[in-house]
Amino acid sequence: MSGIEDFYAVIPAGGAGTRLWPLSRSGHPKFLVDVLGTGRTLLQSTVDRLVPLTGSDRLLVVTGTRHRDEVCRQLPSLCGEGPDQVLAEPSPRDSMAAIGLAAAVLAERHGPDVVLGSFAADHVIDGQQVFERTITEAVAAARAGYVTTVGIKATGPSTAYGYIEAADDLEVVRAPSARHVSGFTEKPDADTAWNYLATGRYSWNAGMFVVRAGVLLDHLRTQLPALHDGLREIGAVWDGPARDAVLDATWPTLTKIAIDHAIAEPVARAGGVAVVPGLFGWDDVGDFESLAALLRDSGTSTLGDDDLVLRVGDDADALVVTAGRAVTVVGVPGVVVVDTPDALLVTTVDRAQQVKEAVDTWRARGATHLL
Amino acid sequence: MSGIEDFYAVIPAGGAGTRLWPLSRSGHPKFLVDVLGTGRTLLQSTVDRLVPLTGSDRLLVVTGTRHRDEVCRQLPSLCGEGPDQVLAEPSPRDSMAAIGLAAAVLAERHGPDVVLGSFAADHVIDGQQVFERTITEAVAAARAGYVTTVGIKATGPSTAYGYIEAADDLEVVRAPSARHVSGFTEKPDADTAWNYLATGRYSWNAGMFVVRAGVLLDHLRTQLPALHDGLREIGAVWDGPARDAVLDATWPTLTKIAIDHAIAEPVARAGGVAVVPGLFGWDDVGDFESLAALLRDSGTSTLGDDDLVLRVGDDADALVVTAGRAVTVVGVPGVVVVDTPDALLVTTVDRAQQVKEAVDTWRARGATHLL
Repeated sequence: MSGIEDFYAVIPAGGAGTRLWPLSRSGHPKFLVDVLGTGRTLLQSTVDRLVPLTGSDRLLVVTGTRHRDEVCRQLPSLCGEGPDQVLAEPSPRDSMAAIGLAAAVLAERHGPDVVLGSFAADHVIDGQQVFERTITEAVAAARAGYVTTVGIKATGPSTAYGYIEAADDLEVVRAPSARHVSGFTEKPDADTAWNYLATGRYSWNAGMFVVRAGVLLDHLRTQLPALHDGLREIGAVWDGPARDAVLDATWPTLTKIAIDHAIAEPVARAGGVAVVPGLFGWDDVGDFESLAALLRDSGTSTLGDDDLVLRVGDDADALVVTAGRAVTVVGVPGVVVVDTPDALLVTTVDRAQQVKEAVDTWRARGATHLL
Repeated sequence: MSGIEDFYAVIPAGGAGTRLWPLSRSGHPKFLVDVLGTGRTLLQSTVDRLVPLTGSDRLLVVTGTRHRDEVCRQLPSLCGEGPDQVLAEPSPRDSMAAIGLAAAVLAERHGPDVVLGSFAADHVIDGQQVFERTITEAVAAARAGYVTTVGIKATGPSTAYGYIEAADDLEVVRAPSARHVSGFTEKPDADTAWNYLATGRYSWNAGMFVVRAGVLLDHLRTQLPALHDGLREIGAVWDGPARDAVLDATWPTLTKIAIDHAIAEPVARAGGVAVVPGLFGWDDVGDFESLAALLRDSGTSTLGDDDLVLRVGDDADALVVTAGRAVTVVGVPGVVVVDTPDALLVTTVDRAQQVKEAVDTWRARGATHLL
């Protein structure tokens, strides 16, 4: 068996990626899109990076029923014979239900001592070897009983991410760089972010959690017993004939809550959370400013066929996404042009955050076919 | 017979309108496009404005053979029974050949004393009554033997137009506001344009010329005898069976020259040119800055279905041309978005002049299907 023994990767694949609209749509969200033009979607790249740690057998994707077919099309190795590796949620119930469902299914199948690591389906990571060493250390800390996070080295005072505050060394032999976590913070304001950066104790929370299935479920039983019981009930029948009936009856009753609030924050206060520093490159491709920077780092400003794009003017640094039409940009520094068959977006990197407003307005106008 | 007796309108319909690309294309240029969303193309509006002066019988359009069918589709009243009203040029030979051909045909059909007025096919005029009064006066000056221009009141120190310098009153009874022209100037630099404006003697040259057919041809014989002879030869056979043979043999030999250089400038030096002030609104819709202003004056910033356009942000004043797709603009003050089925242009009103560079570059790349 390749990779880390008894280690399972869980990939919650949800979220609309609204700030990347119209490249990302509700029916075809960011994780299903090849946003960097590498030939692999973000979901496929996520799997590619985890397979060395788990093999293709020990990977679960948790996604909405509407995305299940496309996930299987993109990841045929997860949809062959054998136990179900693409867990389809009847409706979105936030990250605690998604990861908790995977933990419950894994605990049923393999017992409570297996370690699971959850990894977002739509992030970009650069530095495979460093990533693998980091996760290997996180798994060691998880085996020692900790809910273990990966703290991304803050490269600036970002106000776009939550932060993890590290405390003393964990003193787990096979996780030498792991530290206790004294707390999590929401996205800070700019002054606070500068202070965080100055202390050197804070890192970015990329939503990676590595933990024994049983430990996670025990914490959940303590914090949110009803949610725990519902998920255990579903997990117990997942691989049997009663799955649909139990899902129909139970899933809609589950509490919608993020794993950060449900587990990470309260357990950190009790000393049960560890952090391993993640020194690899990381980006959540959260908006077009981020996408423009990632593409520029890879030597282009075009997503699609660059022969179809013409930039005129010394200041022409447009990010252009083309789906097959000729796109001409004359001047307009910092502009972002996203051309899709049915919707065109023009904005600038400075206004990237406001794209969400546009999506909200189209929704309010009833143009759901565009969303 | 309605309108002004023995007065014929000639509409040279040529030019690619490159700075309005991709709204205007070489195969479907500006004059064939409804650039203001009024339901009438610029050519149709030009005819609409001239019909009260000429009736629909006394109108000639001179255009390229490739545009003849579309001109007839847009102007069916010019393509019925009776003498040919859409003169098709085998190749573009500039404005002197186009207007000279019309003069030669009119002189054959109706004698040299008829007055012709030439009017660009792709300009916008506001103020029909003032326009009609102006042309009526110009026709009176033309009957007195002058090559008569219309001088558009300069509303600012434009460097985009040529200027007409007025001198003494003409003293023709039925043309009381007509003056002699002391000269024409090319597009000036900004300082010169300010000086022109300060004197009050200069007006914009919109390329309108009103003149007796015989007078025009006589001037042409003096200035460019070979061009004159070629055009007379073609005019003599236009309505007979030899037209194609003579056109094939003669048309390619004709000198390419603008009527301004061929006639207006030398004849003005000899005292033979008059100007009548044109106090109507006028715009040559030369670029997207001009189009944006014209649309704004009519209360919109959208050409196409405004329901398909979403502007987000207080500073969102985008000029949007849509051919049926949803267009979203977030921020980007002064932006111009021209969305057509096969080509998209994004620029700003400040860079409107540089659109020509984009067209030149696509041509250099061999993308002739986009031009």
